[in-house]
Amino acid sequence: MAVPCLAAVDSPVSRALGIDLGGTNIKAGLVAANGTVLAQAETPTLAHEGPDAIVGRMAQLGRQLLAGAPGPVLGAGVGSPGPLDPSTGTLYFTPNMPGWNDYPLGTRLAERLGMKVVVENDANCAALAEYWLGAGRGTRTMILLTLGTGIGGGIILDGKLVNGARVTAGEVGHIAISWDGPKCGCGSRGCLEAYCGTAGILARARELLDKPGTVSLLRDLAGPDLEKLTPALIGSAARKGDGPALSIFKETGRLLGVGIASLVNLFAPEVVIIGGGIAANADWLFPAVREEIRRRAMRPGSEQVRLVAAELGNHAGIVGAARLVLPA
Amino acid sequence: MAVPCLAAVDSPVSRALGIDLGGTNIKAGLVAANGTVLAQAETPTLAHEGPDAIVGRMAQLGRQLLAGAPGPVLGAGVGSPGPLDPSTGTLYFTPNMPGWNDYPLGTRLAERLGMKVVVENDANCAALAEYWLGAGRGTRTMILLTLGTGIGGGIILDGKLVNGARVTAGEVGHIAISWDGPKCGCGSRGCLEAYCGTAGILARARELLDKPGTVSLLRDLAGPDLEKLTPALIGSAARKGDGPALSIFKETGRLLGVGIASLVNLFAPEVVIIGGGIAANADWLFPAVREEIRRRAMRPGSEQVRLVAAELGNHAGIVGAARLVLPA
Repeated sequence: MAVPCLAAVDSPVSRALGIDLGGTNIKAGLVAANGTVLAQAETPTLAHEGPDAIVGRMAQLGRQLLAGAPGPVLGAGVGSPGPLDPSTGTLYFTPNMPGWNDYPLGTRLAERLGMKVVVENDANCAALAEYWLGAGRGTRTMILLTLGTGIGGGIILDGKLVNGARVTAGEVGHIAISWDGPKCGCGSRGCLEAYCGTAGILARARELLDKPGTVSLLRDLAGPDLEKLTPALIGSAARKGDGPALSIFKETGRLLGVGIASLVNLFAPEVVIIGGGIAANADWLFPAVREEIRRRAMRPGSEQVRLVAAELGNHAGIVGAARLVLPA
Repeated sequence: MAVPCLAAVDSPVSRALGIDLGGTNIKAGLVAANGTVLAQAETPTLAHEGPDAIVGRMAQLGRQLLAGAPGPVLGAGVGSPGPLDPSTGTLYFTPNMPGWNDYPLGTRLAERLGMKVVVENDANCAALAEYWLGAGRGTRTMILLTLGTGIGGGIILDGKLVNGARVTAGEVGHIAISWDGPKCGCGSRGCLEAYCGTAGILARARELLDKPGTVSLLRDLAGPDLEKLTPALIGSAARKGDGPALSIFKETGRLLGVGIASLVNLFAPEVVIIGGGIAANADWLFPAVREEIRRRAMRPGSEQVRLVAAELGNHAGIVGAARLVLPA
C-alpha cells in the first residue's frame, strides 16, 4: 500500500522550473514541491542582445535543468523586472534592459520550452518565496520590502499576491513619504526609495559627516572624500559603536517607518519583512522603524504587526518564481 | 414552468437588512438582492447611552423593517465606525463614541435580531456599495476616497474588500504624504486627511486669502475673519471664476494626487472614485489630481486608471452594509 504514496510524492505536478531574469544574470532552478532547489544553473543575461536572444538563453538554461530532472516538470515560473501583465506574461517595459516594450515573454518562452509558463514581477516573486518558506510562513497577510539600490518587495493579502488590473502592483518602494522630497529613480519625488534606497541613505550620511565637528570612524574607513562609503561600511562602524553611523541607521529607520506605517494603515498585515543587505543592521534599524509604526499607524493594526528580517537569501527569486506554477 | 423562476426571485436569500451606525443617527434599510432599498428607517444614536442601549435601538429599527418585509430576510449587515474584526464583528474601539472597547457588536445584535449579522467598517461599506452599484460597477479593482471632515474610503481588490489580519484596513486617508506634515486627527502627522480633509483645505485657504494683495470673492462671502469659510463656499466662488478659490482646489487636487499616486503604485486600480461634498468641485479638482497621478505613478498603472466622482449618495452606507450578507 506504500507504493501509491511514493508515486504521489513523485507525481508529475511535484516539480517546477523557477527562472529569475536579472539585468546581469539569468538564474534558474529545478524546485521540488516542498521548495527544495534540486538543481541550479546560471548564465549572463547579455541585456544588449535584446529579448529574443535572452529568451533563447532562458530556454537553454531551462532545458538543461529539465534534462536532469528525475521526472516530469509542471511548468516554468519567471520572475522578471518591470511592470507586466501576469495574466498574459507580457512585459510592458523594463527600466534597465532595452527592447522589451510590450514583449510577450510568457508566450515566447512557452513556445521554446514546450510547457506552461507563468510570469510575475521579480520583487513579487521574492515576496511569494518569503510567504511560502521564509519569514512570512504561517501568516496570511504580509509585506516584504527589499532594501538595496532600489526598494522592491510585494504584498501578500489573505494568501494572495496583490496585483492590479492587467498589471503587476505592490510597488512598496514607490509610495511618497514627502510630496516635495528628493527625486526618485521612478520619475517621481519623495518616494520611500528616494529616502531609504542606497543613494538616499548615502546622501544623508554624507550630509551628517560633512557637518563641522562630526567625529566618526567613517572618515577613516570611507576615505577623505567618503568615496568608499557604502551601507555595509556604515554597518561596520555601527557595530563598533560609532555615533554618527548609529544615527544614520536611526534616521533611515524612522523614514522607513513612515512608509511602513502607511502600509500598516492600508493592509493591517501580520508581519512586515525587511530584506536586502541592510537587514544585517536590524539591531540599529528596526527599533526606529517599530517606534515610528507605533507613533503613526492606527491601533490595533500597529500593535499586532511584527517587524522581522527576511530569511531567504539568493534562492528567493528562483523559489518564488517556481511557486507560481506549483499547486497550492 | 414560470413558477419556479418567480419563486427564485422571491427566495429567502433575496433580501437583507443594512444598518449604518453613525455618531448621530442610526440608519437602516431593507435592501433587495438588486440593491433596491425597499424600506428605510432612522433613529438617533444617543451615543452617550453606551453600546448596549445603542444595540437595542439598532435591533428595534431592524425589527420594524423586518415586520414589513414581504418575505424572509437573509441577515443584517452593519457599517460601523472604528477598527473592528470583521470575522467576529467585535469593535476594538470607536474614536467618537464612548464605551465600545472590544465590544462584540455582531454577537449582541445577532442575539437581539435572531439572525446572522456581519459587521464591517462604515467606509468600507461605502466602497462596497460603489463597487456594486455605483462608479465602480463592472470593475474588479477600485479605490474609494470620501472627502469630508475626515477622509474615509476603502479598497476593492479583485472583487474583494481589502482587510487586514483580524482587523479592518483600507485606511486610504491615513497614508502619509509628508513625514513632517501637519498633525492629523489619527495622532500621526502629514496624512492625506491632514491635507485634504476639511480642516486642511480651510487652513491652506486662509493662508492664501490672508496674503497681502490677494483679492477674492471669498473675503465678501466668508465674512471679515473668514469665519464662515467652508469648502462649499470655496466651490461657489470657484464657479464664479474666483482665482484664489480655483487655486485652492488646484492645490488640494495636487496633494490628493500625491496620495492617490502612491495608491496607484500599490494597487494599479481600474478606477479611483472621489466621494463627499467636495466631489461637486470635480471640474477644478480632478484635472490637478490626474496631472499628479501621471507625473508620479508608474506606467502603465498611471495610464489605465480612471478618476471619477462617486455615484451613490446617502444610501451608500445602508446598501453596502446589506451587501455584506447578500449572496455574491
